[in-house]
Amino acid sequence: MATQAAFLAGFSQLAAQPGRDRAVAVAVAPAPGPARVAVAAVGSAKLGVKAGTSRTAAVARLGVRCRASLIEPDGGRLVDLVAPEEGGRRAALRREAAELPHRLRLGRVDKEWVHVLSEGWASPLQGFMRDDEFLQTLHFNAIRGQDGRMVNMSVPIVLSVGDAQRRAIQADGATRVAVVDERDRPIAVLSDIEIYKHNKEERIARTWGTTAPGLPYVEEAITNAGDWLIGGDLEVIEPIKYNDGLDQYRLSPAQLREEFARRNADAVFAFQLRNPVHNGHALLMTDTRKRLLEMGYKNPVLLPHPLGGFTKADDVPLSWRMKQHEKVLEEGVLNPESTVVAIFPSPMHYAGPTEVQWHAKARINAGANFYIVGRDPAGMSHPTEKRDLYDADHGKKVLSMAPGLERLNILPFKVAAYDTKQKKMDFFDPSRKDDFLFISGTKMRTLAKNRESPPDGFMCPGGWKVLVEYYDSLVPSEGSSKLREPIAA
Amino acid sequence: MATQAAFLAGFSQLAAQPGRDRAVAVAVAPAPGPARVAVAAVGSAKLGVKAGTSRTAAVARLGVRCRASLIEPDGGRLVDLVAPEEGGRRAALRREAAELPHRLRLGRVDKEWVHVLSEGWASPLQGFMRDDEFLQTLHFNAIRGQDGRMVNMSVPIVLSVGDAQRRAIQADGATRVAVVDERDRPIAVLSDIEIYKHNKEERIARTWGTTAPGLPYVEEAITNAGDWLIGGDLEVIEPIKYNDGLDQYRLSPAQLREEFARRNADAVFAFQLRNPVHNGHALLMTDTRKRLLEMGYKNPVLLPHPLGGFTKADDVPLSWRMKQHEKVLEEGVLNPESTVVAIFPSPMHYAGPTEVQWHAKARINAGANFYIVGRDPAGMSHPTEKRDLYDADHGKKVLSMAPGLERLNILPFKVAAYDTKQKKMDFFDPSRKDDFLFISGTKMRTLAKNRESPPDGFMCPGGWKVLVEYYDSLVPSEGSSKLREPIAA
Repeated sequence: MATQAAFLAGFSQLAAQPGRDRAVAVAVAPAPGPARVAVAAVGSAKLGVKAGTSRTAAVARLGVRCRASLIEPDGGRLVDLVAPEEGGRRAALRREAAELPHRLRLGRVDKEWVHVLSEGWASPLQGFMRDDEFLQTLHFNAIRGQDGRMVNMSVPIVLSVGDAQRRAIQADGATRVAVVDERDRPIAVLSDIEIYKHNKEERIARTWGTTAPGLPYVEEAITNAGDWLIGGDLEVIEPIKYNDGLDQYRLSPAQLREEFARRNADAVFAFQLRNPVHNGHALLMTDTRKRLLEMGYKNPVLLPHPLGGFTKADDVPLSWRMKQHEKVLEEGVLNPESTVVAIFPSPMHYAGPTEVQWHAKARINAGANFYIVGRDPAGMSHPTEKRDLYDADHGKKVLSMAPGLERLNILPFKVAAYDTKQKKMDFFDPSRKDDFLFISGTKMRTLAKNRESPPDGFMCPGGWKVLVEYYDSLVPSEGSSKLREPIAA
Repeated sequence: MATQAAFLAGFSQLAAQPGRDRAVAVAVAPAPGPARVAVAAVGSAKLGVKAGTSRTAAVARLGVRCRASLIEPDGGRLVDLVAPEEGGRRAALRREAAELPHRLRLGRVDKEWVHVLSEGWASPLQGFMRDDEFLQTLHFNAIRGQDGRMVNMSVPIVLSVGDAQRRAIQADGATRVAVVDERDRPIAVLSDIEIYKHNKEERIARTWGTTAPGLPYVEEAITNAGDWLIGGDLEVIEPIKYNDGLDQYRLSPAQLREEFARRNADAVFAFQLRNPVHNGHALLMTDTRKRLLEMGYKNPVLLPHPLGGFTKADDVPLSWRMKQHEKVLEEGVLNPESTVVAIFPSPMHYAGPTEVQWHAKARINAGANFYIVGRDPAGMSHPTEKRDLYDADHGKKVLSMAPGLERLNILPFKVAAYDTKQKKMDFFDPSRKDDFLFISGTKMRTLAKNRESPPDGFMCPGGWKVLVEYYDSLVPSEGSSKLREPIAA
């Protein structure tokens, strides 16, 4: 109880917020279905049991917390939109897609969303959003499920269509359309379709909190998109593959859940990454594991989960990041036995507090019941003003209050920096702030570009070598783009 | 049962949405507290009782539906921030406000918000929003209350402060500040204050879904506001008065509830207005009452509730609208016995689907359990593009799905237009669309300005005369401003 109390004290800020005690409860009894929650309330860092839960039931529940039972996916069931291998469904679907008169051609980001949807990362979504889902996402960052409960959904997962094609589809009264890749190969069928207006300005304003030009996702996937959106139920012909040598890392939520169960994980803590891992990140991850063990979990498993979809031009590309992550594991910075590295197939919005909810929600569906959140998650510089686009604290604040994420334990972390006295990355201690060195993204990049070494203990040598190689591989003229904070998670 | 079914069929669209059956239930059993709800489910226009509610309990509940019991305010208790008249509290507060070293001077809109907050229209808000409330409003259009439940809150109710004053307050470590009017007269004390950044761009983008220049509320209350926001608990010295001859119409939610109880209202249906009432509006209101009577309500009371705070320059001013509304009542267009006309003191955002939630939520606090919503509520033309800012259907869609408004019955209405065959305003019948004349705001204005008469039956003669007088009172040079849709609610 004492160690639990110490750990839970870390949640005190969250626990003090209305409606958050359920979240804390999950820390105690991992992943219970809502009907089975033994609600524990935390007050004065003391573990109590809420009125309405019998003491026996609560104790029973606490007693079995180490039995592997993963957090329930949103909506209660993990969505799987890929046609089954058996029974000829794939062949039939492929034939239908080839014959359907209307075909929607996917862009790069669209295909990534098909991947995301097909594996249930966005459970309970069954396909691209219809108008009701789109509106709820924009206004409430949450969607009411069939059972009346809210599930979190903060970024629109939508497919656009141009006006000419919209007219043609509507003139035919079509209810099913084929979804094809850039070379017209059938990928999926979208059924029970609904076409509605794509108000780009409103979508951008409500998702990013700005309409300034230069937002990477907007330029990649919205500006030139069609003026209509088409929603519907998606049936995907076969699992989405990229054949880029990284598919073995692309574990679906179902595969991740299997892996966590195989390892008898009794807690899963996810760490969203879109940058190289330095020892500050590693410190956070190992420290979290230590705290979970202290709390009584027997086998907490870490999911360092690099984002695999679209990123902006000056982020380190996925293939290099994966090489770097491999080194980090090889060199023992993270313990491979309690770590599952996998790729999260979503594209990146850089939408800060709005997007971090999506990052967290998707990981619930993959079985994570703890989510580590840092400073300015999914943030970037304002595209036209000399400031960060989002307040550095808003991401974790919004995450801790978001509807539909009550079941997830949010783990805000303190800032890590290079301790010049101890010559290692450590949690920043403001009482001796002059001892600490903040190695910014720009600084890290400049060092790597100049083949200089960072201070000892900043990053494992093999990982650093990968970074140097990456910057070596770039043409020199690329220099002027604005890389920001590869140091942040 | 048959008439109930007929009425409820009108809700079928809403009832079919997940989580909406609770809303329909309120139509049957007005204003029960959550613990006492006899939940009725509507399927195939048939009234049933949900599993979990004993038949006896449900029947008992249905049986007493005509006993006056108004819908519970958000948070369970109507907030009242005005110091009590007795006990010397007002004098003490006035003294304190006069002596406090820091005084925040209210602008026109700020004062309207103090009025709104003081009377509990925004229950359970206890004052200007702190950062957590502001963030939840922007991201979720809802705030989690102390009891963990979500209450709707879609527009920020915030007070700004400039940088110099912010520094001074923080340097002093002040926790209480005085709130004064434009002539430095003490209005209130704000306590337990929290100062946080006012990111105007993000606030505007997330509230309006655009950042285009020319949004009336933004120009009035945000552009020149301070770069910081100050939240806290508000204690108001005495009821806010305007001394403009209209204060008798400014009934607080508590006064409205008293009035509804005095009239033994068993249903209250609110109609948000910011324009003159024409016979199309009147038709909607009387038709709604008819339907409520058919359903079995004995005494449904109508609340035509003109907005009294800031409106854009080309809207008809409050004083003229009130004159017009008086004529409408005098000439018997609406039945005074079942109608309570009052002023809603909020300023207008013109933020469409975001704002309509606020309009509805505030009326719950005033005792309304039915809310009539029209085409493009709180909408306006895009300030820089040649189109409406919002999709005309989004307001009612968003309203019907909004978190925290599940208890409110949303009554979407069909478009009313002038039937040239019957020479009266009637619901538009698309099967004989050529018989109908849509009298746009511009057209109505042109007629009134030219002292011409609208077609017979468009508006009661006395009401029309008020409009003509209003336009006569304007200086001729005002002509070029863009009046839009005074015809819409």
